[in-house]
Amino acid sequence: MTKFAEVLRKVHEMEPRVQCITNFVTVNDCANIILAAGGTPSMADHIDEVAEALSCVQALVCNMGAIALTDSMIVGGKEANRRKIPVVLDPVAVGGTQLRRDAAKRLLEEVHFTAIRGNASEIRYLAGQQTTGAGVDVSDLDAITEENLPEAQEMIKNLAKSLGTVIAVSGVIDLVSDGERTMVLRNGCATMSRITGSGCMLTSMIGAFVGAAAEDPFTATCAAMAAMGIAGEIAEKKRIKNGTGNATFRTDLIDAVFNLTEEELTKGARYEIF
Amino acid sequence: MTKFAEVLRKVHEMEPRVQCITNFVTVNDCANIILAAGGTPSMADHIDEVAEALSCVQALVCNMGAIALTDSMIVGGKEANRRKIPVVLDPVAVGGTQLRRDAAKRLLEEVHFTAIRGNASEIRYLAGQQTTGAGVDVSDLDAITEENLPEAQEMIKNLAKSLGTVIAVSGVIDLVSDGERTMVLRNGCATMSRITGSGCMLTSMIGAFVGAAAEDPFTATCAAMAAMGIAGEIAEKKRIKNGTGNATFRTDLIDAVFNLTEEELTKGARYEIF
Amino acid sequence: MTKFAEVLRKVHEMEPRVQCITNFVTVNDCANIILAAGGTPSMADHIDEVAEALSCVQALVCNMGAIALTDSMIVGGKEANRRKIPVVLDPVAVGGTQLRRDAAKRLLEEVHFTAIRGNASEIRYLAGQQTTGAGVDVSDLDAITEENLPEAQEMIKNLAKSLGTVIAVSGVIDLVSDGERTMVLRNGCATMSRITGSGCMLTSMIGAFVGAAAEDPFTATCAAMAAMGIAGEIAEKKRIKNGTGNATFRTDLIDAVFNLTEEELTKGARYEIF
Repeated sequence: MTKFAEVLRKVHEMEPRVQCITNFVTVNDCANIILAAGGTPSMADHIDEVAEALSCVQALVCNMGAIALTDSMIVGGKEANRRKIPVVLDPVAVGGTQLRRDAAKRLLEEVHFTAIRGNASEIRYLAGQQTTGAGVDVSDLDAITEENLPEAQEMIKNLAKSLGTVIAVSGVIDLVSDGERTMVLRNGCATMSRITGSGCMLTSMIGAFVGAAAEDPFTATCAAMAAMGIAGEIAEKKRIKNGTGNATFRTDLIDAVFNLTEEELTKGARYEIF
Repeated sequence: MTKFAEVLRKVHEMEPRVQCITNFVTVNDCANIILAAGGTPSMADHIDEVAEALSCVQALVCNMGAIALTDSMIVGGKEANRRKIPVVLDPVAVGGTQLRRDAAKRLLEEVHFTAIRGNASEIRYLAGQQTTGAGVDVSDLDAITEENLPEAQEMIKNLAKSLGTVIAVSGVIDLVSDGERTMVLRNGCATMSRITGSGCMLTSMIGAFVGAAAEDPFTATCAAMAAMGIAGEIAEKKRIKNGTGNATFRTDLIDAVFNLTEEELTKGARYEIF
Repeated sequence: MTKFAEVLRKVHEMEPRVQCITNFVTVNDCANIILAAGGTPSMADHIDEVAEALSCVQALVCNMGAIALTDSMIVGGKEANRRKIPVVLDPVAVGGTQLRRDAAKRLLEEVHFTAIRGNASEIRYLAGQQTTGAGVDVSDLDAITEENLPEAQEMIKNLAKSLGTVIAVSGVIDLVSDGERTMVLRNGCATMSRITGSGCMLTSMIGAFVGAAAEDPFTATCAAMAAMGIAGEIAEKKRIKNGTGNATFRTDLIDAVFNLTEEELTKGARYEIF
């Protein structure tokens, strides 16, 4: 059994509870994909209960789409740190507005994150690069390509080292680094960018995987990235075969996570490690 | 025609408007299942309009998942009481945090509820029992089983009597009591706990059924529980046959409510009354 | 190529970014239908970033379902006016409560809208007529029928002229006017009123279409209305054929927008212009 399959087995066995402070656009999909993966979602995000609710969870996900809840993320994140519960950050559109830049600064100062997953524009912004991405979508100029792959690997490795966290970039090419190891993953499909929430769902999955395999967050994050990419490929095959569209694709994507076996994950994952 | 079928006919004929103060995780599903059942949803929840909006509704649903809107629930609930409009409570995760315990106390003191539907952990908490359920999911220790069924029936009967309301517990075994009659229902399937919102949707359905059959909220609640369970069984058959997952199951569940006939409800309902 | 097909081509080519200040009930569907149409959604609605986020969008949609965010709509709408970005209003349930009547008054005083889309009750209210519609659904007494069509055409033409905007009414019969031209459209199906969000989705689509064809908002709005109606017909055919319900219909509706071709739009649109 590969390490990815081991992580998936742990998720299925532990059924980790994942608390999400997340945005209203994609919250239902995030909850359903956590359930599909075998976890249990909790969407308690009120500042007066966010810390108390952590008493029975295995991971906390902070999604900056819920920008009005930054204070809840800080209170929850600090309490999770105190309890040694992994915390995952999705820095949605972080470079896009001053409000988000300020929120990210506060979050990174006050909370230690186990993993941070964003698109290339978001992660480049966190690495201090000039970025052109606006809002939730990656800019073409920022995207990770075969050409800039060595530079991007260096960038996320340094960012991971400096923040002491796992950094994950999702896109046509995915990258994950913990500052020592760096993995390049090549699963997924283009239709994932034609639904809302594929990034948010992936971050929620990382929460479930890191929650179940807290001893190795790098491998857990890579496994979640691979699982999501393979699910996307399965859903894309159906979409092409049946002539359906992005709404059915979304449903099939979550279904594919629901039905994903350890064997499929092992066979389907396409990655190199550096 | 059975009494359940009569209730369903009333829902189809009256097309009750159901106002929901509910949480952002499952609000879309709640609206769509009310529409599937034949009702009309209204999600007006702002404290400055929640009472005024009641002028043309047949039922109000207060879902404690929207914990930040407790004040709206109290304002709306009191006005609904004044207007003799049925009010249904979903005490989401009520025992989980102090914020929720306090909110439930206020709600039960200030509003009279026609029906309260929760999982076994939530209802046991309201009955003053020690509970182990954390968050939105029932704890295995709290769940209603064949073994503890007599105790559970007694518990909800007493709670119903003391609060002067219909109490409904959904789970593998469903229980409904109005303090006099108690019904045990055995429809449903395990996949219902692998989607978010099956509880919230059921409570919204109870709103529609109680709104259309306000003269007998006990039977209306039982009919909604049976309808939801049968819809779950129909969706589960499709899931197994087609090898789909929880996302398609959610869609099929709402579809099954949309297509549910009086005859199917009569034939499919499995229940005993005490 | 018809003018409608030209608009659709522009949407596909430009991939307009549409910023929505919209309600939590249907926000996910609104985002997915914008993506289906070929645009990119941005749901930035926080008052502290709503203006800044406009720097890279082609249209702003203000949906009064998000009644608590009226201030964000005004700040964003004024900035969009300054930047000459089209702004589309969905006056959800505008006549239903004082809160909404006041919000609409402020919005219409402070923001110039390129297009306003509502149901007949909502638009009649804006036109100063007595209406009976309560909440989000059109009243039967307000609905546009073959009988009252001449009166309704006159009403929306005058409203469009007085507000200097495109007015669109959706229903069994759709009407669009810019104060000079008036179009009657007859696409769609009854099941569209059995899902939540068909109106919100349509308004979001208008945002994408008006964003991509800002030089002719009247034709862009008509094209979006026709596209949505045709998508509804495609989804309805599937629903009848497969015996599915409103949840599958919603998925198929978005899929149909995803797959809608210029040819289908040209052939399927049923309209008269006056």
